[in-house]
Amino acid sequence: MTQPHQIILLAHGSSDIRWCETFEKLAEPTVQSIENAAIAYMELAEPSLDTIIAQASRSGARRFTVVPLFLAAGRHLRKDVPAMIEKLEAEHQVSIRLAEPIGTNPKLGLAIREVVRDELGRAES
Amino acid sequence: MTQPHQIILLAHGSSDIRWCETFEKLAEPTVQSIENAAIAYMELAEPSLDTIIAQASRSGARRFTVVPLFLAAGRHLRKDVPAMIEKLEAEHQVSIRLAEPIGTNPKLGLAIREVVRDELGRAES
Repeated sequence: MTQPHQIILLAHGSSDIRWCETFEKLAEPTVQSIENAAIAYMELAEPSLDTIIAQASRSGARRFTVVPLFLAAGRHLRKDVPAMIEKLEAEHQVSIRLAEPIGTNPKLGLAIREVVRDELGRAES
Repeated sequence: MTQPHQIILLAHGSSDIRWCETFEKLAEPTVQSIENAAIAYMELAEPSLDTIIAQASRSGARRFTVVPLFLAAGRHLRKDVPAMIEKLEAEHQVSIRLAEPIGTNPKLGLAIREVVRDELGRAES
């Protein structure tokens, strides 16, 4: 038996509402079809990672996987997010796995090719 | 008849080689199967947008579509890139269309859901 898992799609966040709306739409297919999945922001927007982990841990979640909605790992994913996670694990007595940024999964490259095909169709219609 | 089109996948760029390698892999399926597609970087890495546009325009390309390998539009895509494009259009006498960032295409959200499924499989195996 495995424990249920809380999935957190982690986006950068911004004070620009349009930025957050794009990420909320990106998260929609996941949130709607995978149980215990939510979006959270690293900074500048709510819900924060802290808010989501506090909430889920109050509901009994102990295991989390953070999937970064970042195409590649820069300073944030190499330093800032691991430090945030370490602090949150201690604070909430939970276990949090930081997955690779989505852009390292080959499925993203295939999706990008389809997006480019859409753009070519748009440009030539 | 429509003119042939040069597609440019535009990534942010970084002095960190691992960052660029991730984007080169992301671009691979597109570059390998769509004619006249190349990756370029906005800053901090080569080939730059300028390099690619200069090269392609020397080979006769007059129409470009820049597809931003960004999940959402922030200051770079709202201000910096349009300004770069305006300058490059004048300089090289070409027409450059800036597409929406890839994250606004619903195909990305579906790919993210599949990435999350992969992560759940990884976490529970």
